[in-house]
Amino acid sequence: MVDPATVTTDAQRRHDPRVRGFASDNYAGAHPEVLAALALANGGHQVSYGEDDYTAHLQEVFRSHFGPRTEAFPVFNGTGANVVALQALTERWGAVICADTAHINVDECGAPERVGGLKLLTVPTEHGKLTPELIDRQAFGWDDEHRAQPQVVSITQTTELGSCYTPAEIRAICDHAHERGMTVHLDGSRIANAAASLGVPLREFTTDAGVDVLSFGGTKNGLVFGECVVVLNPDAVRAMKHLRKLSMQLASKMRFVSVQFEALLSGDLWLRSASHANAMAKRLAEGVRGIEGVEVVHPVESNAVFATLPHDVTERLQKRHRFYFWDEAAGLVRWMCSFDTTEADVDSFTAALKEEMGKQ
Amino acid sequence: MVDPATVTTDAQRRHDPRVRGFASDNYAGAHPEVLAALALANGGHQVSYGEDDYTAHLQEVFRSHFGPRTEAFPVFNGTGANVVALQALTERWGAVICADTAHINVDECGAPERVGGLKLLTVPTEHGKLTPELIDRQAFGWDDEHRAQPQVVSITQTTELGSCYTPAEIRAICDHAHERGMTVHLDGSRIANAAASLGVPLREFTTDAGVDVLSFGGTKNGLVFGECVVVLNPDAVRAMKHLRKLSMQLASKMRFVSVQFEALLSGDLWLRSASHANAMAKRLAEGVRGIEGVEVVHPVESNAVFATLPHDVTERLQKRHRFYFWDEAAGLVRWMCSFDTTEADVDSFTAALKEEMGKQ
Amino acid sequence: MVDPATVTTDAQRRHDPRVRGFASDNYAGAHPEVLAALALANGGHQVSYGEDDYTAHLQEVFRSHFGPRTEAFPVFNGTGANVVALQALTERWGAVICADTAHINVDECGAPERVGGLKLLTVPTEHGKLTPELIDRQAFGWDDEHRAQPQVVSITQTTELGSCYTPAEIRAICDHAHERGMTVHLDGSRIANAAASLGVPLREFTTDAGVDVLSFGGTKNGLVFGECVVVLNPDAVRAMKHLRKLSMQLASKMRFVSVQFEALLSGDLWLRSASHANAMAKRLAEGVRGIEGVEVVHPVESNAVFATLPHDVTERLQKRHRFYFWDEAAGLVRWMCSFDTTEADVDSFTAALKEEMGKQ
Amino acid sequence: MVDPATVTTDAQRRHDPRVRGFASDNYAGAHPEVLAALALANGGHQVSYGEDDYTAHLQEVFRSHFGPRTEAFPVFNGTGANVVALQALTERWGAVICADTAHINVDECGAPERVGGLKLLTVPTEHGKLTPELIDRQAFGWDDEHRAQPQVVSITQTTELGSCYTPAEIRAICDHAHERGMTVHLDGSRIANAAASLGVPLREFTTDAGVDVLSFGGTKNGLVFGECVVVLNPDAVRAMKHLRKLSMQLASKMRFVSVQFEALLSGDLWLRSASHANAMAKRLAEGVRGIEGVEVVHPVESNAVFATLPHDVTERLQKRHRFYFWDEAAGLVRWMCSFDTTEADVDSFTAALKEEMGKQ
Repeated sequence: MVDPATVTTDAQRRHDPRVRGFASDNYAGAHPEVLAALALANGGHQVSYGEDDYTAHLQEVFRSHFGPRTEAFPVFNGTGANVVALQALTERWGAVICADTAHINVDECGAPERVGGLKLLTVPTEHGKLTPELIDRQAFGWDDEHRAQPQVVSITQTTELGSCYTPAEIRAICDHAHERGMTVHLDGSRIANAAASLGVPLREFTTDAGVDVLSFGGTKNGLVFGECVVVLNPDAVRAMKHLRKLSMQLASKMRFVSVQFEALLSGDLWLRSASHANAMAKRLAEGVRGIEGVEVVHPVESNAVFATLPHDVTERLQKRHRFYFWDEAAGLVRWMCSFDTTEADVDSFTAALKEEMGKQ
Repeated sequence: MVDPATVTTDAQRRHDPRVRGFASDNYAGAHPEVLAALALANGGHQVSYGEDDYTAHLQEVFRSHFGPRTEAFPVFNGTGANVVALQALTERWGAVICADTAHINVDECGAPERVGGLKLLTVPTEHGKLTPELIDRQAFGWDDEHRAQPQVVSITQTTELGSCYTPAEIRAICDHAHERGMTVHLDGSRIANAAASLGVPLREFTTDAGVDVLSFGGTKNGLVFGECVVVLNPDAVRAMKHLRKLSMQLASKMRFVSVQFEALLSGDLWLRSASHANAMAKRLAEGVRGIEGVEVVHPVESNAVFATLPHDVTERLQKRHRFYFWDEAAGLVRWMCSFDTTEADVDSFTAALKEEMGKQ
Repeated sequence: MVDPATVTTDAQRRHDPRVRGFASDNYAGAHPEVLAALALANGGHQVSYGEDDYTAHLQEVFRSHFGPRTEAFPVFNGTGANVVALQALTERWGAVICADTAHINVDECGAPERVGGLKLLTVPTEHGKLTPELIDRQAFGWDDEHRAQPQVVSITQTTELGSCYTPAEIRAICDHAHERGMTVHLDGSRIANAAASLGVPLREFTTDAGVDVLSFGGTKNGLVFGECVVVLNPDAVRAMKHLRKLSMQLASKMRFVSVQFEALLSGDLWLRSASHANAMAKRLAEGVRGIEGVEVVHPVESNAVFATLPHDVTERLQKRHRFYFWDEAAGLVRWMCSFDTTEADVDSFTAALKEEMGKQ
Repeated sequence: MVDPATVTTDAQRRHDPRVRGFASDNYAGAHPEVLAALALANGGHQVSYGEDDYTAHLQEVFRSHFGPRTEAFPVFNGTGANVVALQALTERWGAVICADTAHINVDECGAPERVGGLKLLTVPTEHGKLTPELIDRQAFGWDDEHRAQPQVVSITQTTELGSCYTPAEIRAICDHAHERGMTVHLDGSRIANAAASLGVPLREFTTDAGVDVLSFGGTKNGLVFGECVVVLNPDAVRAMKHLRKLSMQLASKMRFVSVQFEALLSGDLWLRSASHANAMAKRLAEGVRGIEGVEVVHPVESNAVFATLPHDVTERLQKRHRFYFWDEAAGLVRWMCSFDTTEADVDSFTAALKEEMGKQ
């Protein structure tokens, strides 16, 4: 075998590892502890497709966070996790109630509809959060065959707009849904940021609040790749492994997904990384709140800051730091922090923004 | 940051890296050079969802193998690669002609049908290989709206039965298909083994033979994860990136898929690994051919050996070395070699088989 | 053969042909001229699946209304017509912009999503009518693979709320859509009522306004069953007959669908019936407008009247005449007139309403 | 209202009601008693979408044939009936075992796959009939997530090749399937011809033999249009009405489907028509069997005759009488008889065949 130390890549010559921005938390690479774990799992043969030792052990790891009935199904990505979870909670005639800003509604190219045959029943919200009242705008028509049957409420924690449900708010939603014969899915693409923001254990706003199935986000929390469908209420689902396979989300060398999650969740790496990202977003929000003409528009309860600022300032600033418009017509931008964002990154960005605003 | 060297995992304690078997080439871990490449791509921010420097450079790498029109679309797994590729080559009313032993027909839990809405038109074959004559058993009924329209021929190279098409055989299939207005997809889950077996460059039995789109297998050739839809004839497809996304095969941190393929394909790692696995299979076949009562049933033209042997021998042998029945009723087993199979592994397996046969 | 005159049915004994209500225009039976046409088409053999003489002739009938490029594809029902038409106008990655009140969004049990894999991008409207400005709320994100691609604008004429687009309004929508590379579908479940209401030929607000494909409603206009996908712009679609078959909308004895449409459209039956239904709705609206406490809430521009009235009045009135709540929470009801509604029906209903209001 | 007697159609001028052929039993029109029943159901308002008096009464009619647990769901066409039934009997991960000649496999343009997401597991057969042994070629792999899960066996009675299962044969299939946790669907597109051929009541080879759900064919037995999903074992299905709607098979004026079935099934019209068609096929088979060079190739156990004859004879004969090749390469043709086929039709066809053979 060749010495790994001699390996290089041409692409790497164009990649400057000192450059970071605020475009997305998945612009970041992997946490070094995660990469190290990948290497630990290498070597020898392990049964493929999830029958390996790492995936078996991962069940215990997830149970330590979410309770003894938990079952974890590693998958490749967030869209995959959501669509597998929602299929597990619906019949062919089912529909999913969600906020109109939900990732499943706006950012998955219709995969829930196309792959799962799912109808999404959407509701406009403030800050991306559903409530029992908002759910009721779509929770009706049971037994009417002309209406796709509402069978699941899907919420995102933290929301796509950076806000965070309290455990009590989620409990109210779950109670409301269960009373109407619906189950609850939680898209936890940034679930670690929620726990860090709320300062409570993961199960307090999931298992204990009544959530049935969640999509646990690993990639944005520092994995190379990997998400996990986490079943909290096994009575609510069936045939999870078949659904994962037919949804093309079954990894052959699953040990490499599972060991990353183990690295994340067996210690406090998940919380350290999320807390840091949240703290950087807070610092950023505080920095820009002092700048006249910049308005922070959603609660900063995770690692995202949404703000409005003049169009020309955005465009000049984007030449210096990478970030995106969230709603170009409204002049709304999104700034994301990640596990590797530094205080210096934030301060230099805030300074640049102040400078560009001064040119107005 | 914590020192990666201090990381350990509980799961690893149960994982003995000295244990290898003949169950599947995806029981193996990742090649050390691939793991090393992952680390090289880490650090700093890179645009997500395929706009990164590694994926850009990967295009050149694939073009060096498959020609200047090549476009490469990294995805997560083989089923994903196949279903994205086949959707790209069909309309909603299209069908795919394939061998009845094709992986897309028997091992993907109906994903082509469920996700892609694809009708598979299957043909029985000898050794898993289609021919123009066999294709014609399903290549008819154009313009008849009652019949799903044959639009693609999908072949597997090397086949699921370990056999290998010659470049001329593939050229004949492509010519035949193209004359009838169909395109050709090649499921290259083990394409490197085919090149190694044939002793020809990759493009000789793909681009140069007329294949339109292929699924390039990385995982079985030593990657942590990752396959690639490789478009050889861009005129045959549209909207590849949309199809990849809606099929839930778009990796956010795609740099980590792409850099693995770069490690594999920019040098000769792909060929070294495949040649080694093939050589081990040859050694195994030669070893067992000498044992009375064991019959090798398909040509050994890659890293697989198919054999029939007495049922009780199989069961005793499986307690010593991991491998699977291919067709239990027929007493048929499959032995797979991988990049990390050693001569000692093969010889000890052959010895064990001989020993168990002696107990008959 | 038995004499048809001797046939009777048990069910018929429970069916009182003198009872009519305002619940829906598909509570009515078939127009006698339509039934008579069915009998004319009977006898002898005709090629099945649309190759019959009646379907061939139907093309000329539709062309006389919609212009020389028109192609008509008879189907079974409205959901079928819409889903076939929308599939014809989209790719696998496409999406459809429509009003959130559109029948395709609220009353088809998710068939567009489940059968067609279509993502619906919905917009709230006043009176169910889209405008270029409203379309722009969803007409963006082209080339962004995370967003289902807006490829069609679907409007309903007359709308689900009884309002009617003017030809100029439809032309503005078509121009707007075409400039953005989208096509326009018109759900014409009650298209005859629109023409009658506007007092213009059918083509003035369809072909001439730029509509690409429409669903022509027959059932609510007096057929036994049958709708028609009418392609006005053949360049916008492909493989219509394959899409109709795979959508399970291909009638074997199609002559019986086609001859009904011929009966409807070769003379003025379509217009007579629709004009009459509209006139009855006008009469009803006028009648109830004079009753204090009853408010007509949408423009009465077809055969529907939407009104709010006290809950207990609705409940008492429903015991005397069949009709439905449209939005029970809002106290909103819908009254539909059909080709067989009589002036006496309307007047007796208005009198009953007045009576029940008086009991308040 | 205009006098129906004055209605005429232009298409009719091209339609010669004296012309009949042997192409298909759906080339025939409707039985006069069926047309008469349509008229009986007309007039007045009836609740739409299946809540009408005719559909209610139809339940009793079907129960008189199939037993007290029977539930009947009228739909539009055969493909629709099959796909609704098969969806009702499967989960998202399910598969259907069927003969490779099954209509669902070869003549529905992939609707089972596209609309239902169903994987068909096909088996070659003699004369189109499955057996327990043949079923076992596909009935395996339970719990293996890589394999679509066999959940239903679908048989066709009479088969697509004109043969007929005995009640005992169906019972053996049902027992075999049920023992393996599968249910049984019967595609009864020509179920009346089977009962007539076997000389037994309908329930003897369905309910009493263990069939769970069947598609009852009306169109080929003399209806204008209409098939019926008949649930014999309500424990095997759920949400039938939702599945019918989302599969676009829900008729708004369902009374007109139901009354046709009542006309067919409340007396002996179904049996009279089927017996007549079968008798004509028998007469035809006997007639051609005497002609040298013509070989009848499948058992003539219903209204179909399959025969091989010289290619040029077929082509000349097709100019005189309409019929189709079944397998052009094999020189195999299919002749179908229907309720309106006359002895004279058969005799003149046999004479024409003899004449053309004589020109050899």
